[in-house]
Amino acid sequence: MGSETAARRMLEADTASTALGMELVELRVGHAVVRMRLTEQMVNGHGIAHGGYVFMLADTAFACACNSHGPTTVASGAEITFVAPAKEGEELFAVAEERTRYGRNGIYDVTVRRGAIDGPVVAEFRGRSRVVQVNGQ
Amino acid sequence: MGSETAARRMLEADTASTALGMELVELRVGHAVVRMRLTEQMVNGHGIAHGGYVFMLADTAFACACNSHGPTTVASGAEITFVAPAKEGEELFAVAEERTRYGRNGIYDVTVRRGAIDGPVVAEFRGRSRVVQVNGQ
Amino acid sequence: MGSETAARRMLEADTASTALGMELVELRVGHAVVRMRLTEQMVNGHGIAHGGYVFMLADTAFACACNSHGPTTVASGAEITFVAPAKEGEELFAVAEERTRYGRNGIYDVTVRRGAIDGPVVAEFRGRSRVVQVNGQ
Amino acid sequence: MGSETAARRMLEADTASTALGMELVELRVGHAVVRMRLTEQMVNGHGIAHGGYVFMLADTAFACACNSHGPTTVASGAEITFVAPAKEGEELFAVAEERTRYGRNGIYDVTVRRGAIDGPVVAEFRGRSRVVQVNGQ
Repeated sequence: MGSETAARRMLEADTASTALGMELVELRVGHAVVRMRLTEQMVNGHGIAHGGYVFMLADTAFACACNSHGPTTVASGAEITFVAPAKEGEELFAVAEERTRYGRNGIYDVTVRRGAIDGPVVAEFRGRSRVVQVNGQ
Repeated sequence: MGSETAARRMLEADTASTALGMELVELRVGHAVVRMRLTEQMVNGHGIAHGGYVFMLADTAFACACNSHGPTTVASGAEITFVAPAKEGEELFAVAEERTRYGRNGIYDVTVRRGAIDGPVVAEFRGRSRVVQVNGQ
Repeated sequence: MGSETAARRMLEADTASTALGMELVELRVGHAVVRMRLTEQMVNGHGIAHGGYVFMLADTAFACACNSHGPTTVASGAEITFVAPAKEGEELFAVAEERTRYGRNGIYDVTVRRGAIDGPVVAEFRGRSRVVQVNGQ
Repeated sequence: MGSETAARRMLEADTASTALGMELVELRVGHAVVRMRLTEQMVNGHGIAHGGYVFMLADTAFACACNSHGPTTVASGAEITFVAPAKEGEELFAVAEERTRYGRNGIYDVTVRRGAIDGPVVAEFRGRSRVVQVNGQ
């Protein structure tokens, strides 16, 4: 519970995520849901969301989930597959679930959906995390 | 040459990328370099760049390179590995190179460096592209 | 049910997989479990399983799961993360689950475990599938 | 040069790779070329090479390249995209190049081609390596 608080504080202190209007909807150990509404700045000339903003939302949910254990944990890499486009004004939900942890590493799956937490899939993301040691990584 | 112009116009019309201060430095068929300075909004509480913004820069260079052939081309997915942190105020360069194309698909490698076009590596990105048909994909 | 039979026949006709001793343990639409015992030919000088054979097992479970819908479906790509080593003589289980399908594409997650279907994780695999059209892809 | 010898010995001692007929064609620090002929056991009922064997070839070239520096280095993960099919009897060449190294990690790109070292592309592979410490990883 203390570590969940740490993850929550991490997100609140994260100007980048909050400036984009991201909001933490759920947080448990190894699990997080973050939502974000697609604004005009996040879409291209055709009104379609930039892949980069979809990635950023997924990455934020991933960061919350992997930091929910307590120790400071960073992304070492990620893979994203774009499933369907999302449009200006739509609300996106990124649902992050821990898949496995081993040593200082972890794998987290994040599904980004639109309209609702169980809405149509927009993207599938898989992040690789690594716990950072006090004396560097 | 006409298609390079198309890629250039695509980026100029892209409010999201230009709002982040991204600038197209080089553009040839299958190749693009885009630069961006890390502002306060792009870093976390420790002054370290958000992985999402590094991804967005790489993704933009990838989009320029894969659209340099002419036909409208979108990202179907991407993989990124974070190599080293970058800090507020630093300038990042994303260098995109076409690796292979087959059918309507393509693979592009993007290296993000800091300080200079041949500076230390910040991230390695590999994008998968797909040409969009007029009647949908 | 007819399509599950198709996936089962596909595996039985697959000399490569059967020559390695792979056996289909479970098969439902979008789900498959395949097992394989690590023989002397599959390990390196240290008695540790080759990543390639772990990949091959995961890839086979993935193929069964994505062909369980009926239409001929091939792998367009995959990502694997090696979590822990496996040793000569151990039995591996690859559990494949469909994650999402869109158009002619699909994403399948496969976890490879050792000793039992719910044993310790050896690798996490994510495959991208594509339905092949009669007139080519 | 001593470390190249180490990589060469590693491959020679690797029963799995040699049993598949893999042969080291070139080896320099951070670079390796391995070839393999597609036998009947490596193809499916349609005479098309199994993705798993293509992966295994790429993975072996990757292992040679990342071990060419000397310290024992293992694959922590890999991504492969299948570009075009290869057929029974064809000879495949996997060309591995180091992309970047940082700390104990490395990224290597491997292109698998058929018929010749500069033949048509069959697959693009990117491997992530990690140096193993004497007292475990």
